[in-house]
Parts: sequence; C-alpha cells; structure tokens
Amino acid sequence: MNLARVRGTVVATKRSDKVDGANWLLVEECDQTGKGRGEYLVALDMVGADRGQMVLLTQGSSCRWTTRTDDRPMDTLVVAIVDEIDQAAATVYAQGREE
Amino acid sequence: MNLARVRGTVVATKRSDKVDGANWLLVEECDQTGKGRGEYLVALDMVGADRGQMVLLTQGSSCRWTTRTDDRPMDTLVVAIVDEIDQAAATVYAQGREE
Amino acid sequence: MNLARVRGTVVATKRSDKVDGANWLLVEECDQTGKGRGEYLVALDMVGADRGQMVLLTQGSSCRWTTRTDDRPMDTLVVAIVDEIDQAAATVYAQGREE
Amino acid sequence: MNLARVRGTVVATKRSDKVDGANWLLVEECDQTGKGRGEYLVALDMVGADRGQMVLLTQGSSCRWTTRTDDRPMDTLVVAIVDEIDQAAATVYAQGREE
Amino acid sequence: MNLARVRGTVVATKRSDKVDGANWLLVEECDQTGKGRGEYLVALDMVGADRGQMVLLTQGSSCRWTTRTDDRPMDTLVVAIVDEIDQAAATVYAQGREE
Repeated sequence: MNLARVRGTVVATKRSDKVDGANWLLVEECDQTGKGRGEYLVALDMVGADRGQMVLLTQGSSCRWTTRTDDRPMDTLVVAIVDEIDQAAATVYAQGREE
Repeated sequence: MNLARVRGTVVATKRSDKVDGANWLLVEECDQTGKGRGEYLVALDMVGADRGQMVLLTQGSSCRWTTRTDDRPMDTLVVAIVDEIDQAAATVYAQGREE
Repeated sequence: MNLARVRGTVVATKRSDKVDGANWLLVEECDQTGKGRGEYLVALDMVGADRGQMVLLTQGSSCRWTTRTDDRPMDTLVVAIVDEIDQAAATVYAQGREE
Repeated sequence: MNLARVRGTVVATKRSDKVDGANWLLVEECDQTGKGRGEYLVALDMVGADRGQMVLLTQGSSCRWTTRTDDRPMDTLVVAIVDEIDQAAATVYAQGREE
Repeated sequence: MNLARVRGTVVATKRSDKVDGANWLLVEECDQTGKGRGEYLVALDMVGADRGQMVLLTQGSSCRWTTRTDDRPMDTLVVAIVDEIDQAAATVYAQGREE
C-alpha cells in the first residue's frame, strides 16, 4: 500500500452508472516522512480524510473489498489515516506534523 | 484513478470475441491542471466524453464492474468527466478551460 | 489498453498445465503513430494478427474474460487489430502504414 | 514477488470498515543481496517479521488469498521471511546478514 | 507476459499459511534476446526450469489460474520455458544459447 497526502477535491457530475455518490479526493503520493513526490491521483475517500493528512491507499482490484465499493469501477481507495510512522526506532512522521 | 485528456478515437474492426461494440478513445494522461504528459492509452468510453475534456480512468480488473464491461477483456475505462479540481483551496482545473 | 506492434513469435514447448495450445506473439509497445518504444512483451494472440500490424493489448486479470483464456495463467492478450487512429482531427495511424 | 526489508511500523487508528486489526509494516524494496532501493511501501504482516529481515511481498489482488485477508482492501502482504538466496551457485544473502 | 532468466533459488522456511511447498526461483527480467536487465524478482516455478534458461512470467492475479496456485498469495509464476524467439524473420534467441 502506498502513502499519500490529501491535497484537494475532484468534482465530476457525469459518471458511469455505478460510480454515483462517491467522494473523490486529489491525493499526492509521498514518502514515509510525508514529503510529496509530485505524482497526483484521484482516490475514493472511505475514512473522512482532511486536506494535509497522510493516508494509506489501496490500489487495483483489492479496492472492491469494502461494502461501499463492491461492484464499482474504482481502482484507488483511501483506507486509513496515518497517525505515526516509526523507522529505525525513530518517529519519522506524526499526524500533527501537517504541512 | 488517473486523470487523462480525450485526444481522439481508435478504429479496430477485427476484434476478439467479447469486445464488439465498444467505443474506444485515444486519451493522454495529464496532471491535475489538465497538462498532458505525452503518454497515450486506449480507453473504453462509458460516459460520452468529447475531445479535449479531462476524464477519470479506471484501470486493471476494476474495469469489469459495470454492466457494459462484465466479462469483457478491457483494462482501461473512462468512468467520469471531470468538472473541477480544487487544490490547496484554489481551483486548478475547470471544465471550460479546454485546450 | 496499450498499443503495440507485432514483431515476431515465441516458441515454448514446456509449459504449465493450463497454457497448452496458446499462440504467443512477440510484441513491441508503440505510441499512437505506431512508433516502437523498444519495450518487448509476449502476448497471446486472439485475433490472428500479422507481423508489423498495430494491435490493442489487454493486460492483467482482465485477460481472463474471453472463452479461450478462462482459467489460464495469461496476463497479456492481443484483443484487436487497429485500423486507424485519429488525433486532433488528423489521422496519425492507418493500417496500410506498416513498417 | 518482490523482495523488501522491514524498516519500521505504521500506526493508523482511523480505518475503513474491513481493515481493523491489521499489523502494518514499513518496508523498503531491496535487491537480491538485501540492499535497499529507497522505495518504501506499507505491507500487512502475515508472518511476524522483525526489523531488518528480508521478506517476500505479494502485491495486487493476489493478496486476498489468505484466511486473514479475505475481503479486506489490502494490496501488499508480507508472505514469507527469506532465509537465503543463491545466485550463480553463490549465496548472495543469508538471514544472519542483517543490517 | 514478461521474459526472464532463471538465476538462482530462494529459501524461506517461515511462510504465511497457504504458501507451503512452493518452489521459488530468483529470476532476472531480460529482453527478447535473453540479455538481463538487472531487475530481479522471485517467482513460483510451475515447469521445472533450470538456471540460465529463459522463461515466461505471468504476474498479478492471473497467477491463480492453475491447479497448484488456486487460493495462494502468489503474484509471479514461471509458466513456460522459452525454446526460441523469432523477430523480423530472424532467430534472436534459441534455448542452447544459455549464458
């Protein structure tokens, strides 16, 4: 699973039949310290993430294994908000450290 | 899900057994402001997108979760037309801003 | 779906249990004008494509959605022969234009 | 399947409905000798791996084929701890050789 | 499907519940002439491939479509040993030509 920062929102009123009602976020892939990589994706929000938070993304067909996404043509989900990342016994990211 | 611009159409009369009737578009991957990246894909149109519009792509096996694509060997779908993208409280793309 | 050119054939007599009888092609990924990228893949031919033709590839688990590939460990299929590609109101590829 | 080193842990208390109880590790992709590549992922631990160990990752929808991950939106699993890798008749990695 | 050379073996005694008994090979991705690219993967051997041979890999969830891999968290299989590759009417690889 990849790490990303929530950067904004995407509005799309004309959608294919099974995508109605989804809340799409603009996310930027980031490293384990929260630093953005300049690569942006659109992801369905499952957890109510706010702008600036680091989140975990699930991509590909694994996306369909939640109640809300069954049988929907989604390939990227926000499945968790990251609180903290520890690397080599040091905290390299904590949620207060938003940009 | 990736962002792309509709750039043209693809005609193919000789197809494998389950692909008949699909409407294929030539799309160019783009960033969140609509700027093209020079990478082109072929995608099945689910929403009636026009040339120049920014669209959302679903890729991989997630593609089969719509009525029209069940059991078809498709790996890229156009599932929505993007109206607007907001990033860091500013509108970085709006649909009138076509190239 | 990606575009590719048929470049040759692959012969393999020792195969895993469910792959017998497949006709494998050597294909080179190409851009929308048919220019090769130097990246080669092996794909199962579903449409009887000839050397030099531009074809559409389906990759990943979408491959299993045809009668001949159900339950076979295939991840790349040739699903159509491209006749023509139009981009920005101009024809950038037509099938007679083989290399 | 890709090789990676366990580098740390990821804490996330706000999760989508089916991800509760998973133990997430921060892993760094590595080569066959255990040398890190600087690319970090988050993976669900299935085997009790410790920091520094080299592990095998399964990615994509193959992840759901274990009892603990059925129907969960996971796309990266740690499925084994590597003891030894032999290349060209020489041992290029052995588990004692942790960093 | 990608081409690769068998380079060695991977030993892992601690595995997740459904991976017991698999025979893992260290493989290096290669081009259509058999030249290695320096990228190494771990693949489950379905065909009894020997070191130095060029093989065909199936990746992603297509891997589960064989009797031995049903319901196992595998994402890379060796599904065939390549005998010969012809490109532009010339033989660019033949199995005797091992490194």
